[in-house]
Amino acid sequence: MDKAELLASEIRHIDITEFDPRPMLEAFGRMAFQARNLATAASIYNRMLEDSSCSIILTLAGSLFSAGLKNLVVDMIEHNMVDAIVATGALIVDQDFFEALGFRHYIGTPHVEDSQLRKLYIDRIYDTYIDEEELKTCDMTIAEIANQLEARPYSSREFIDHMGRYLMEKGLQSEKSVIFSACQKGVPIFVPAFSDCSAGFGLIHHQWNRKGNKVTIDSAADFLELTRIKLEAKDTGILMIGGGVPKNFTQDVVVATEVLGYDKPMHKYAIQLTVADERDGALSGSTLKEASSWGKVDTVYEQMVYGEATLTFPLLLSDAYHRGSWKERKTARYADLFR
Amino acid sequence: MDKAELLASEIRHIDITEFDPRPMLEAFGRMAFQARNLATAASIYNRMLEDSSCSIILTLAGSLFSAGLKNLVVDMIEHNMVDAIVATGALIVDQDFFEALGFRHYIGTPHVEDSQLRKLYIDRIYDTYIDEEELKTCDMTIAEIANQLEARPYSSREFIDHMGRYLMEKGLQSEKSVIFSACQKGVPIFVPAFSDCSAGFGLIHHQWNRKGNKVTIDSAADFLELTRIKLEAKDTGILMIGGGVPKNFTQDVVVATEVLGYDKPMHKYAIQLTVADERDGALSGSTLKEASSWGKVDTVYEQMVYGEATLTFPLLLSDAYHRGSWKERKTARYADLFR
Amino acid sequence: MDKAELLASEIRHIDITEFDPRPMLEAFGRMAFQARNLATAASIYNRMLEDSSCSIILTLAGSLFSAGLKNLVVDMIEHNMVDAIVATGALIVDQDFFEALGFRHYIGTPHVEDSQLRKLYIDRIYDTYIDEEELKTCDMTIAEIANQLEARPYSSREFIDHMGRYLMEKGLQSEKSVIFSACQKGVPIFVPAFSDCSAGFGLIHHQWNRKGNKVTIDSAADFLELTRIKLEAKDTGILMIGGGVPKNFTQDVVVATEVLGYDKPMHKYAIQLTVADERDGALSGSTLKEASSWGKVDTVYEQMVYGEATLTFPLLLSDAYHRGSWKERKTARYADLFR
Amino acid sequence: MDKAELLASEIRHIDITEFDPRPMLEAFGRMAFQARNLATAASIYNRMLEDSSCSIILTLAGSLFSAGLKNLVVDMIEHNMVDAIVATGALIVDQDFFEALGFRHYIGTPHVEDSQLRKLYIDRIYDTYIDEEELKTCDMTIAEIANQLEARPYSSREFIDHMGRYLMEKGLQSEKSVIFSACQKGVPIFVPAFSDCSAGFGLIHHQWNRKGNKVTIDSAADFLELTRIKLEAKDTGILMIGGGVPKNFTQDVVVATEVLGYDKPMHKYAIQLTVADERDGALSGSTLKEASSWGKVDTVYEQMVYGEATLTFPLLLSDAYHRGSWKERKTARYADLFR
Repeated sequence: MDKAELLASEIRHIDITEFDPRPMLEAFGRMAFQARNLATAASIYNRMLEDSSCSIILTLAGSLFSAGLKNLVVDMIEHNMVDAIVATGALIVDQDFFEALGFRHYIGTPHVEDSQLRKLYIDRIYDTYIDEEELKTCDMTIAEIANQLEARPYSSREFIDHMGRYLMEKGLQSEKSVIFSACQKGVPIFVPAFSDCSAGFGLIHHQWNRKGNKVTIDSAADFLELTRIKLEAKDTGILMIGGGVPKNFTQDVVVATEVLGYDKPMHKYAIQLTVADERDGALSGSTLKEASSWGKVDTVYEQMVYGEATLTFPLLLSDAYHRGSWKERKTARYADLFR
Repeated sequence: MDKAELLASEIRHIDITEFDPRPMLEAFGRMAFQARNLATAASIYNRMLEDSSCSIILTLAGSLFSAGLKNLVVDMIEHNMVDAIVATGALIVDQDFFEALGFRHYIGTPHVEDSQLRKLYIDRIYDTYIDEEELKTCDMTIAEIANQLEARPYSSREFIDHMGRYLMEKGLQSEKSVIFSACQKGVPIFVPAFSDCSAGFGLIHHQWNRKGNKVTIDSAADFLELTRIKLEAKDTGILMIGGGVPKNFTQDVVVATEVLGYDKPMHKYAIQLTVADERDGALSGSTLKEASSWGKVDTVYEQMVYGEATLTFPLLLSDAYHRGSWKERKTARYADLFR
Repeated sequence: MDKAELLASEIRHIDITEFDPRPMLEAFGRMAFQARNLATAASIYNRMLEDSSCSIILTLAGSLFSAGLKNLVVDMIEHNMVDAIVATGALIVDQDFFEALGFRHYIGTPHVEDSQLRKLYIDRIYDTYIDEEELKTCDMTIAEIANQLEARPYSSREFIDHMGRYLMEKGLQSEKSVIFSACQKGVPIFVPAFSDCSAGFGLIHHQWNRKGNKVTIDSAADFLELTRIKLEAKDTGILMIGGGVPKNFTQDVVVATEVLGYDKPMHKYAIQLTVADERDGALSGSTLKEASSWGKVDTVYEQMVYGEATLTFPLLLSDAYHRGSWKERKTARYADLFR
Repeated sequence: MDKAELLASEIRHIDITEFDPRPMLEAFGRMAFQARNLATAASIYNRMLEDSSCSIILTLAGSLFSAGLKNLVVDMIEHNMVDAIVATGALIVDQDFFEALGFRHYIGTPHVEDSQLRKLYIDRIYDTYIDEEELKTCDMTIAEIANQLEARPYSSREFIDHMGRYLMEKGLQSEKSVIFSACQKGVPIFVPAFSDCSAGFGLIHHQWNRKGNKVTIDSAADFLELTRIKLEAKDTGILMIGGGVPKNFTQDVVVATEVLGYDKPMHKYAIQLTVADERDGALSGSTLKEASSWGKVDTVYEQMVYGEATLTFPLLLSDAYHRGSWKERKTARYADLFR
């Protein structure tokens, strides 16, 4: 097969308004194992939405947007269901910004010879394909944005805000975009390991070629900014998809407020959808009960759900969408704190 | 808490007619990872139902009925969506027959002191509780059935048929029952490791106390009977929930027909919903592609779905129920082959 | 590649006397996660060996012998480190008996086209190959043994004993054999799902072709026999490799003694080496603490170790071999109870 | 139990010179599944050590040092078995630097009430305990180091170098230290998400309290520096323990050289020890074959090993230590590139 044949079928993003899983989740709540856990998680998320003192932080890790979960996050933003986002660079830059520039992800298969893909400049994520040449355009667009900025340290949040403004100026080449909507709705996006993605390629291109002072990305500034949000919020709830740096970073802000001399409560609500388990001691699979020993997460409303996110995240979100608690909710517009 | 408080809240079985997941599965089919795999599996199962030459064998392992998935299997039987069942003894005896005798499973929690449960004679399955004294009644009912049978070898299929007749005679003490419906609709149920459950307790009680010849369970007869079904069927499709003995046993019948001197095709369709993976070499997680090297499963229509069954099985089945291909389908009544 | 090239390199069985892991396991005991769990398990197994009132039951599931773990189990038998074995049919018949007939397993790869293997009659277990034509000889040898036996019900234990006698008579075509050594040392081997393997093929060939009464396999007899061993033993310890039917069957005998009217203690020691986890509610990954709610396993000396058995089982066994507690130990010769 | 009782037993680091696993790994190489994979990985690592054109990059994720794997990494550095390290902040700051300040990790248990630990200021990592008050001292030491530096952007590599100098000056309060040895041997350490750990707490304390310009951490500088190492090296091999940001970051440098206009080869050798699997599409479990579609990893010498690192990493390293190929090897002293 040639490249055009391999990249013939686009991934499409699921639309959580198109189906109503409430009766299914209600049934799940009276069953066992992960079905019941998912129902419990859904009811905790609904409780967060109803709690007017609660700011909601969404953490994202794993290849979620290439898998069709991007518009779901856009819908969260548009419907005031989230107040801050902490994510991996792959999600925000290589996948969301990439699609906003007009590029797409394609339905592939894991049963393929990777050497064949290599020759065609097709990159594979399990069963999904990407045109590598399009990714390079994405890298270079980041370099272009960096080249136009004043040479000084930026938090990832601030740099991503500039990416949002770039999209507003140039026009969105995809139906929806997380960066674009977040920029408009004042939802700050943090990427604590911002160089670990397409942004890294653009930024080193900038730093390598720029004479004199350069744009730098200060990851400490990100941590300080997210801590300021924790200081602003009365209560907080965290909805974590996958683990990794976004999970740890977000749990840590409770301790960070203490380091700055404040006495703030732990995260009041916590949900994690994950496939990792606790028995290798790694952070991604560590339980929310364990996090409570660190003083990070309260244990009254917490739920781990073990399942792959393409199966669990749409159900959880669509349930909350249809229950409608977001209709009364206001966005905190935390991005305005830093603008 | 005392026993009554711990056993206050019953597990309820999900009703796949109460929600329509078709729009969701259609969206899943254009996404990635396990969502797309589940959509593919659903379309293969629908293909089985539409293929009038195809007999469908369902294999069941894992604690599915205590988790609320029993009525779903009853609905498969009642709507001609399955022609033979191969399962673990725990499912058929400790869970289905147990509920048919009037007992229930209860919503519990894994975060409990098992020593406390031990004192109260409460048995735990992860987050679900069972009254151990009720289980003993189930054991003794099996002994009572065995005591009334002629002393000779029985296949598990035949013994389970007698359990169905017992239920018809005594009256069903649960809304639905897999054994009961299967008995009426002529769907044979095989439990290749029949002593490995509550039935084992009843049977050794019978054998220990009976003078002279005893009822015995011939597991070779089970294998021969399932092989006869494979010989009768033009084509076969297998829907496997979990792995274990039911998976292996059912895949093996293709080879068994060859041992008896026949030339029958491999299983034409194959689906497995599982959490096991292939990398430890165990059968439960072995891929359907690997099974094709053994001549057991054809590879045109096969799909593994990695996810816990309480999340995936209801979606797959409810999709098929609402697509309605079963309406044209006839049951093979394979149980009549042996009656 | 042709068949001879694909089957060029034999799997060899690890020899636990050839290396001494004691210093490594001692270090593991002061570390964390699965290393520490393995060290704890090793010390519990050593405690079983030192406890002269304790009979040791080994349960085996997963493709262990084809992976090079056969001689390790033979060494356990020869050095009085085990008193009864409960296993899958694949291990005892398709792998141990198969090798005893002169056949071998071969080093392969999972990165192969299964359709190519199919054409060459090569069966694949993840990264291991088997000559399918040799497996058929194994099937037919079982049929031959069945044909020579009196037509009546047999426990799997009794039938396997006849397989051992067959090997003594015909001569062993492999360096070592679990069936052969167990037969000589009086260690009974139970296969509760005996038809679910090559034995099933041989037995249905026998039943299909034999006129009149046939050899049958009574799985209830297996359960009764293992229960009699539990009645005979003062205390019991269980070492479980993988889960499945062997795990459940062996845990259940405690309850079985109660069903027969006796008051025997729970299994005093329990170890499981597994890759399964508890969160899907299936028996294979259920914790030993959960088993204590059922009255099956005591919780003073129990340890789950999460890791694949080719990595963990040799370390555990070689440690026990070198510690030497087996030197004072006597075999219970439980097989003699039934001969 | 009071705090002193709970923190009574120290985790000790395994010493890979104290046992010789070579005979065991040689046997593993003729077995199957993960044992054979580990043997293959060990032989690939040995090949890296023997290849004088190959620079070795070690990536570390997961709670490895608190689990007793710290001295093993120190031994790699001391014996010229690694040329650059990419790790999580938890490992380098919260665990290595923490111990270098005189604090320790303690043997605990996962079967504990976390609320009880919370009251005692004990933090739990699965089965390991940490004194939270000691962690705060670690945070504040980072703040103290930042306060003494010139206010400008630093790569994490540069900041960690200053942490090494701090230790040299103040004296090491642990037997060994990764930071200390790396500083001496010129092995650069990169932590691409440097704020996501104890360092983050120290740095925000610095930034919050410092008037005027502040120390910032430029994660793009890290990426550029690691890319410069890739440009310097003739060939590269990567040994990855766990996944996460360190894995992705290190694989990405191949593409980064291309972005800067160079034509460098893919990583010639690649090993990953992990418990993650590929089927959720996340980077941590993505296969090395998939990485080859991205042009990051060559496929001639690559091996995934599925197992928890406390079991697999000591065997791999001790094997290489005893084979002795490191004796002829020189360290690349890449840290000197940037000093």
